[in-house]
Amino acid sequence: MANPIEFYFDFSSPYGYVGSTQIEVLATKHGREVVWRPYLMGAALKAMGAAPNVDYPIKGDYVRHDFARTARWFGVPYRQPEPFPVATVGAARAFYWVDERDSARAKELAMALFKAYFVEGLDISDAGNVVKVAAAAGLAADDVRAGMNEPAVKERLKTVTGGALARGIFGSPFFFVDGEPFWGTDRLPQMDRWLAEGSF
Amino acid sequence: MANPIEFYFDFSSPYGYVGSTQIEVLATKHGREVVWRPYLMGAALKAMGAAPNVDYPIKGDYVRHDFARTARWFGVPYRQPEPFPVATVGAARAFYWVDERDSARAKELAMALFKAYFVEGLDISDAGNVVKVAAAAGLAADDVRAGMNEPAVKERLKTVTGGALARGIFGSPFFFVDGEPFWGTDRLPQMDRWLAEGSF
Repeated sequence: MANPIEFYFDFSSPYGYVGSTQIEVLATKHGREVVWRPYLMGAALKAMGAAPNVDYPIKGDYVRHDFARTARWFGVPYRQPEPFPVATVGAARAFYWVDERDSARAKELAMALFKAYFVEGLDISDAGNVVKVAAAAGLAADDVRAGMNEPAVKERLKTVTGGALARGIFGSPFFFVDGEPFWGTDRLPQMDRWLAEGSF
Repeated sequence: MANPIEFYFDFSSPYGYVGSTQIEVLATKHGREVVWRPYLMGAALKAMGAAPNVDYPIKGDYVRHDFARTARWFGVPYRQPEPFPVATVGAARAFYWVDERDSARAKELAMALFKAYFVEGLDISDAGNVVKVAAAAGLAADDVRAGMNEPAVKERLKTVTGGALARGIFGSPFFFVDGEPFWGTDRLPQMDRWLAEGSF
């Protein structure tokens, strides 16, 4: 059985959102599974002494323009949310609570959260909104609300985020194919070749 | 006559080097010319309060790995130079001195400087090495050496760099197609579509 593709992302990342719409198709093409791993990219930025792209003068204007253009390029709906970026600890905790029970449903929740934020403009830093999205996706609102506060769930997100930094992850999306790291939706074509050839 | 593609880069940029090997082919495919505009990316980093990618912890290791892999992806020879990055004011001045006289020869010099640094490992921050590369490219060493020190040439590089920042340029390579900005070799596929369709 081939290793799954590892897909790290932050729920507040436009390129992470776009990547989420592409990675399963790419994986299926090559007979791979995908493991989804939301983490808190803010921790990586802090470790680097860096800020979110949009906070840099000059670069900020370009990347906002590029978010929308890149979404169009991939044929994915996109509307720049405000506030942006937002804290995603609640969204990630809800994901992991579901993931412990059913990884397929956790992916569905992740896609619903991305759509809520990047298409519908819902502020997913609000725990109440996360629960609403989960409920609309067919999950029991009370269970999700309680699950997000479970110490084991909080601990899992900390462990994933700490592990991500230890593996050299600093952006979103960030993928591994058999241990080889690829940062950004820009690298999907390189991943496609890597998956086909083993390396290049 | 269609607008030329504008190609801004820093001579110390690996992705700028890789981009330089691709952009003329893309332009020719769409019946466009390319105007090459080396600038001093350090000025943009300073304006943003940012550092070169390789200076960030975590990210630095990844990008060094990605430089070489991206070069292989494009089928371009690459050997990580040390020291890296280097000051490119001399290389850019030599370029503009030649460019005032013959833009085609200036492009040849640019390609020779990129190759000297990123394939042969010659430190192009050294003005003597810039002159050597120019001489090997068929230019008169004494003329280039003197030309690099001409006030008008120095002024031109300052003007291009200041103009680049004013236009929102912050990276390398950085392209414009009919005013639309594209940052990075990653965006060549988007540029290809933009050139074909006018926009998307």
